[in-house]
Amino acid sequence: MKQLSVEHLLGIKYLNKNDIDLIFETANHFKEVINRPIKKVPSLRDITIANLFFENSTRTKLSFELAEKRLSSDIINFSASQSSVKKGETLIDTVNNILAMKVDIVVMRHPNVGAGVFLSKHVDAKIINAGDGRREHPTQALLDALTIINRKGKIEGLKIAICGDILHSRVARSNIYLMNMLGAEVNVIAPKTLMPKSIERMGVKSFTDMKKGLDGCDIVMMLRLQNERMTSSFLSSNREYYEYYGLTPDKLAYAKDDALIMHPGPMNRGVEIDTKLADDINVSLVKEQVELGVAVRMACLKRYCK
Amino acid sequence: MKQLSVEHLLGIKYLNKNDIDLIFETANHFKEVINRPIKKVPSLRDITIANLFFENSTRTKLSFELAEKRLSSDIINFSASQSSVKKGETLIDTVNNILAMKVDIVVMRHPNVGAGVFLSKHVDAKIINAGDGRREHPTQALLDALTIINRKGKIEGLKIAICGDILHSRVARSNIYLMNMLGAEVNVIAPKTLMPKSIERMGVKSFTDMKKGLDGCDIVMMLRLQNERMTSSFLSSNREYYEYYGLTPDKLAYAKDDALIMHPGPMNRGVEIDTKLADDINVSLVKEQVELGVAVRMACLKRYCK
Amino acid sequence: MKQLSVEHLLGIKYLNKNDIDLIFETANHFKEVINRPIKKVPSLRDITIANLFFENSTRTKLSFELAEKRLSSDIINFSASQSSVKKGETLIDTVNNILAMKVDIVVMRHPNVGAGVFLSKHVDAKIINAGDGRREHPTQALLDALTIINRKGKIEGLKIAICGDILHSRVARSNIYLMNMLGAEVNVIAPKTLMPKSIERMGVKSFTDMKKGLDGCDIVMMLRLQNERMTSSFLSSNREYYEYYGLTPDKLAYAKDDALIMHPGPMNRGVEIDTKLADDINVSLVKEQVELGVAVRMACLKRYCK
Repeated sequence: MKQLSVEHLLGIKYLNKNDIDLIFETANHFKEVINRPIKKVPSLRDITIANLFFENSTRTKLSFELAEKRLSSDIINFSASQSSVKKGETLIDTVNNILAMKVDIVVMRHPNVGAGVFLSKHVDAKIINAGDGRREHPTQALLDALTIINRKGKIEGLKIAICGDILHSRVARSNIYLMNMLGAEVNVIAPKTLMPKSIERMGVKSFTDMKKGLDGCDIVMMLRLQNERMTSSFLSSNREYYEYYGLTPDKLAYAKDDALIMHPGPMNRGVEIDTKLADDINVSLVKEQVELGVAVRMACLKRYCK
Repeated sequence: MKQLSVEHLLGIKYLNKNDIDLIFETANHFKEVINRPIKKVPSLRDITIANLFFENSTRTKLSFELAEKRLSSDIINFSASQSSVKKGETLIDTVNNILAMKVDIVVMRHPNVGAGVFLSKHVDAKIINAGDGRREHPTQALLDALTIINRKGKIEGLKIAICGDILHSRVARSNIYLMNMLGAEVNVIAPKTLMPKSIERMGVKSFTDMKKGLDGCDIVMMLRLQNERMTSSFLSSNREYYEYYGLTPDKLAYAKDDALIMHPGPMNRGVEIDTKLADDINVSLVKEQVELGVAVRMACLKRYCK
Repeated sequence: MKQLSVEHLLGIKYLNKNDIDLIFETANHFKEVINRPIKKVPSLRDITIANLFFENSTRTKLSFELAEKRLSSDIINFSASQSSVKKGETLIDTVNNILAMKVDIVVMRHPNVGAGVFLSKHVDAKIINAGDGRREHPTQALLDALTIINRKGKIEGLKIAICGDILHSRVARSNIYLMNMLGAEVNVIAPKTLMPKSIERMGVKSFTDMKKGLDGCDIVMMLRLQNERMTSSFLSSNREYYEYYGLTPDKLAYAKDDALIMHPGPMNRGVEIDTKLADDINVSLVKEQVELGVAVRMACLKRYCK
């Protein structure tokens, strides 16, 4: 069997095309498994996985937990709120302590950029990055890409718009790496205050005008506008944001006729996306993203474990 | 096998006598199972259940979790405090997101009346109502009724008093529906401020005098007085409440000689019930209620799943 | 098979030498088990364990949970923050309620001294004390002793220093009982404000000067300095504490040449222990303590269950 090029899943940035293919191959297999009446496989029956969430999370955490349960692994959950971290313990001590209990894989979300990379150099376990600060959220990009492939047959040659709070979004960053690697053309669209400087260096075109950015696109990825931004100096108001950057049928008309909409969730209906569009099963892939999320995470756990 | 008349367990109000019989039949079977040395059965081995608790809960949540574990199902837990709900997501989006992960049953507690009914119309999963606002708490009423049947042999013809904060109690409401359906005569007893207007329309007799309300009763169901009521304008003081509505041996003497006491827990000893009465195993059914709670919830999960 | 002398694991104080031997024998077996590729055994497959944590805990809770999972038991978790305790329920009612759900073992941490002892007299389940106030933390002492035995071959005749906040430490108290019972000589070292009066009655020598207390010791157990103490009137400053009571290579030189360091975790590096010493695998047993923690807890659960 072909091998992954790296031992940990720290970011899309560190993967190559062959890694992606291997993960997708396994994910498609698991996608089929979780649609069977019996969704559980014994693949990781003797594996203990620690979910370390130093930031709040609902969807990603549930998705990983379900993936782990369907692989029959043992799970321990650790969240910052109940943690020794508050008692002044260092990250390495916290994780080493958990590893000393013979944990095989650490799935970690952390507010600090590069927390997973740092950890992978200091502890002896497989690390799966479930989001580190505003840097990367690799499993989200992987599930997004696989969702597109399952609908459009490929990524190569597609034109993909990522729209919203690019500045703070790890989802955007991971998707830019991945869509570029897989041969798409990527447009990023945001108000100036939410657009990183020199974003073009990542190999994308940047737009502040949504209509221009959406022009001719096959896929429109909307990003969640986080509540804390809404009340900050980044934006004048939700209403104005919706006016200029909310995805409405009007604006979607600038994309290709068969353009599809994605959103990592949770959605702010009426802020970044029109509520009817979000529910329109002809154009919205939101449900498929969540569904594939479990399969992709099963694949990552399985692939990185061995 | 006979069939349930409805697809979801949203409230006693929506059930018929045949539904109740089917649930009790299965619950009695599971009651026997959980008294075996090996308490686990593989009934729901390939079923994933999401426990969505948008309100705090200890007993009901533990009881459902144990029921689910003894049925060998996979479980994901979701509580409001860690939820996307705080991020502004709608209930339907939250639940649909969870369902997209291939969840079969949703057990939900929610502060809003009718949350389960609403959800059952919009999402594609079995819904078990674990309490919605002050409306219904069907599994509590089912376990209460089965507890009575196991001790008194029947419900029909019994006289049952429900005493305490009727106004805010979903336990009272579900029990009124159920005890009436099963042929009991129901008295409700409360101070005026805690008695709903027009409660007689539900087919009960209402009393503000506990002694009169308890007269000739076979069963005395005490309700929990919630802390938030105690300090509110509903009541003058705990002491006065105990004086007039706390169950004491004196007041119990007005009921039948072989009257039995029930309480959904947690109890405020010395507020709504005398502490010795609560512990008197000759008259108190509290422990049996909790024990049967697991069996009844196993039965509901099993019955509504298929 | 030889029998334990007591039905509950409430404290080292209540155990005898034979009990300790039985627990260590089983723990050494499980230590071997959890180093196999397949770490799970079916020993407690039909056992339900309730983890009742009325105080925050990370390590001890995770360690117990992993122990329980590796024994294949069913687990229900209950923490004070989500509990009926806040609703005014008594401890006995809370636990009886949980037991009525057919729980076999209660693992309990509680802020009150003797909570486990009290409970064991009033409820019908096996109680494992996971820490009660400042009184005892028996599984910690057991894992500490077994860690020493596995490295030094024995406890008898060793000289063991316990250093830090003796006054508030249940770890210290359980270790004093256990190390004395197993034939060690125990020195306790603390600033006057953190040293209990009449500590010598427990059969130890007390020191306020760390160099004197460490003189000739085989084992140096450092205690965690809790954050709440640091800002209190017990101590002038972290810096001064480190100066006088922090374990540094200089001070360690007063112990025997082959002295080993222990710490129950989480460590305050630079407060009670030099960061390099903490990581020095030639002298620090911290990782082995955590590793043995799971095996020792598996042993306690198995032994006290039957």
